[in-house]
Amino acid sequence: MRSIEPIPDVMRAAVLHAYDGAPESLRIETRPVPKPERGQVLVKMVAAPVNPSDLMFLKGFYGVRKPLPVVPGWEGMGRVVATGDDWLSRSLLGKRVACAAPDKHDGTWAEYMLTAATRCIPLGDTVSDAQGAMLIVNPLTAWALMDIIRKDGAHAFVQTAAASAVGRMVVRLSQHFSIAGVHIVRREEQAELLRAMGATHVLNSETPDFDERLREVCHQLHATIAFEAVSGMLAARVLKAMPDGSRLILYGALSESPLMADPRDLIFQRKRVEGFWLADWLSGRSILGQIRLGKHIQRVLGDLLRTEVAARYPLSEVHRALADYQASMTAGKRLIVMEAA
Amino acid sequence: MRSIEPIPDVMRAAVLHAYDGAPESLRIETRPVPKPERGQVLVKMVAAPVNPSDLMFLKGFYGVRKPLPVVPGWEGMGRVVATGDDWLSRSLLGKRVACAAPDKHDGTWAEYMLTAATRCIPLGDTVSDAQGAMLIVNPLTAWALMDIIRKDGAHAFVQTAAASAVGRMVVRLSQHFSIAGVHIVRREEQAELLRAMGATHVLNSETPDFDERLREVCHQLHATIAFEAVSGMLAARVLKAMPDGSRLILYGALSESPLMADPRDLIFQRKRVEGFWLADWLSGRSILGQIRLGKHIQRVLGDLLRTEVAARYPLSEVHRALADYQASMTAGKRLIVMEAA
Repeated sequence: MRSIEPIPDVMRAAVLHAYDGAPESLRIETRPVPKPERGQVLVKMVAAPVNPSDLMFLKGFYGVRKPLPVVPGWEGMGRVVATGDDWLSRSLLGKRVACAAPDKHDGTWAEYMLTAATRCIPLGDTVSDAQGAMLIVNPLTAWALMDIIRKDGAHAFVQTAAASAVGRMVVRLSQHFSIAGVHIVRREEQAELLRAMGATHVLNSETPDFDERLREVCHQLHATIAFEAVSGMLAARVLKAMPDGSRLILYGALSESPLMADPRDLIFQRKRVEGFWLADWLSGRSILGQIRLGKHIQRVLGDLLRTEVAARYPLSEVHRALADYQASMTAGKRLIVMEAA
Repeated sequence: MRSIEPIPDVMRAAVLHAYDGAPESLRIETRPVPKPERGQVLVKMVAAPVNPSDLMFLKGFYGVRKPLPVVPGWEGMGRVVATGDDWLSRSLLGKRVACAAPDKHDGTWAEYMLTAATRCIPLGDTVSDAQGAMLIVNPLTAWALMDIIRKDGAHAFVQTAAASAVGRMVVRLSQHFSIAGVHIVRREEQAELLRAMGATHVLNSETPDFDERLREVCHQLHATIAFEAVSGMLAARVLKAMPDGSRLILYGALSESPLMADPRDLIFQRKRVEGFWLADWLSGRSILGQIRLGKHIQRVLGDLLRTEVAARYPLSEVHRALADYQASMTAGKRLIVMEAA
């Protein structure tokens, strides 16, 4: 093991004890600081966001369930303070990095996190701590969705939860790449927010003429691909509104309801439903491809892929961060900032 | 126009006046006998079955809604008694044919039907009137589903509504081609019927350990493709039971409920949902390919693709045929037999 500073034996961390979503199942505790082996780095965490995927994880709804007790948090940023004795890991020593949590072990809501060197992206000086902490989950998802549109050859797309962090990035990216988008929200203030960003086709799913207007605009723009993050009946309504042969790609389930679809849309109109998971999309790329992507993302992170931060909380107030985020996701991300070790 | 016998001016036909499924919306009436033009043939109908797609059509749930009033019935058999003055149509004059109804005009539940020559398959002497009348919808669907398995490269498949006419054909075809199948029914008598046919993996969705057993057998056989004809919650249960990356292909909706799916199966397990419509599958084939297929199907029509007939009804008793069929589909097809013109 190599290190650039003394590593304490113990640290403070948020620790999950049950996948039930109950506040008392998540506790601030003292845990031993793990030691990096070959291929691993120890990151002294600076900041980590709360994402919808974290909320799903806490309730046991996420694609991965880790053995309990475990530290939640899928992404964050910090400085690499110790590494295993291999070339790739050593090359990160002392660097500021954006980092993703390992699949099976403790995550980012702690003073230190052990992860694979391949799960870190070194950060340039122009990237702030806050933007670096939120480099992976949302910006890469938005980037991947654009990549799917380009590969599909679709003329236009539809997205739900368009005022979410990912949704706003998709709005900006599609404007940048001149791809027409139909943006669906469920509150008028969200619609105004997107219109202020310059979005043209913004629809509120709670208005009485929503289905008719969605159908009109989808056919007019020939929008044959939908990014859907709500699930439930909204998925069925979006699928029905799109032209024959359209694809609905589910990447979230904010409603926590089963996806619904009218059989006639699937059978007689050749429409299809599939899912998107960032982990799958990334695993389909080489390490070199991921490094190139990481650099590219950083160049647009302060602009096209910026994330609005609504508030910062010390690790000890993680429960308040969670409650505030669930009360209003549209206001922006909640960032957990680690106290000095 | 060429003809082999005198054609009357009028005929008896079942005529639909509203897409509401009400018995009084379907009436036996006198209609003019249409005259074939170029590319068309006039078929003097002998027999026509009631299929699930006919029931959907009567209620307005089918992929095609024809202008009302209209004669229902998607398939049948008869003799070509008059044709337009072109080579293909004339070649069918006097022949016994299986025939499909046109997309926009009157169908097979009548004494005569006008259709395109390309929608007729000449029948060999070994094919009975009854089997010929049911050559297209179910046998071609079963054949197409097998074709999908072979192109997909799946090791094994799952099917719901396995005791239906198509389901039984799929059982026999998969035995013939040595493809492992998991057959789902919802009553014990249906399970026994399939076991008597030699099916090994038969599950009743109404038993308490169904989901667990389905999951076990799908993983054991690596069944990654499902043919689903029920929709609703059963679709979600089948999708959940299958291994990562599986496809669910919806080709019917006997429950008349929206398809449901757990978002986690789509997002984290790369599972997909799509539809199958015979009309699409056929339109992807050349006329020559369809003729070759028609001949091939006839060779196995008395055996692998045979249909059980539960009862025959004169055209005047079409309402009884519909009521009996809806009361028990498993007993076999109901055939409408036309009286002499």
